[in-house]
Amino acid sequence: MTRDNDDLRALIRTISDFPKPGIQFRDITTLLLDAQGFAATIERLASQMEEKPDLIAGIDARGFVFAAALALHLGTGLLLIRKDGKLPGETIAEEYALEYGTDRLAMHVDACAPGAKVALVDDLIATGGTAVAAARLIERAGASVTGAHFVIGLTELEGSERLRAEGVNVHALIEY
Amino acid sequence: MTRDNDDLRALIRTISDFPKPGIQFRDITTLLLDAQGFAATIERLASQMEEKPDLIAGIDARGFVFAAALALHLGTGLLLIRKDGKLPGETIAEEYALEYGTDRLAMHVDACAPGAKVALVDDLIATGGTAVAAARLIERAGASVTGAHFVIGLTELEGSERLRAEGVNVHALIEY
Repeated sequence: MTRDNDDLRALIRTISDFPKPGIQFRDITTLLLDAQGFAATIERLASQMEEKPDLIAGIDARGFVFAAALALHLGTGLLLIRKDGKLPGETIAEEYALEYGTDRLAMHVDACAPGAKVALVDDLIATGGTAVAAARLIERAGASVTGAHFVIGLTELEGSERLRAEGVNVHALIEY
Repeated sequence: MTRDNDDLRALIRTISDFPKPGIQFRDITTLLLDAQGFAATIERLASQMEEKPDLIAGIDARGFVFAAALALHLGTGLLLIRKDGKLPGETIAEEYALEYGTDRLAMHVDACAPGAKVALVDDLIATGGTAVAAARLIERAGASVTGAHFVIGLTELEGSERLRAEGVNVHALIEY
């Protein structure tokens, strides 16, 4: 393991102009295809946690990949935070800003017990809009966010700062 | 472990009339929240496999949950099969029927090497439309599908029969 996870960085592919011109898309699908790289990613995400949380929360849809594997690795349950309208039970929802307009994230109102310690996981933090919405949902359910854990952080977009302003500890394995 | 996985069945919640009247929605989020239930699900999915595949393929989005944890458990890479338009690289796509109209699943054209053995994973098989499309994508890439593995099978909708007609072995932990 190198301190800045250059071995994992080498497994991430950059695709220019996706989903639109000017964007450098960091593609984690090449990392996932590499069995050792995927396992190392999960171990290093886990090693960022000071204590074992009660639940891992994953954000729809790429966040599910890392959150599910982490939950299995740590022996915790998994909480799904989804686009509004996808969950069948009673939900609470939070709006977040898109470049044009807004969207909503939701979680089941009974998904975590009051006082539960929940670690938030996603593949990437950009502007932090979805992560802030997810953290607020967890707090509204009476649980606490022990930290937010990302494979990739896009530092220029300042999502980590926005999440820290909510009182959440932020960790990213690889920064661009 | 009971032969018909009644312990896992007890962790699945049924919600009536979602996403529309008359549908009994099998909600796996309650199973995921249970650390022991989730771990047992992954172990039993793995135990359905006669040999270790080269890759686990998960179908967008709930399939990612089980596929990712299985890939970590088995020590394989993970291949993401997504709704068309979500993957950044060059893709191949397959159409499948919806109740009204059609939709398309895609995978990266370079995601698996010719000859690779790929196990297909999703949370649920209903009519089998997405699973058949996913299996065809894997075969088109020159790889072979070692089996299709589901937590839930809805037997009345005959998806397993459709998938078997493609030459794919089908396994479901729990049938309704």
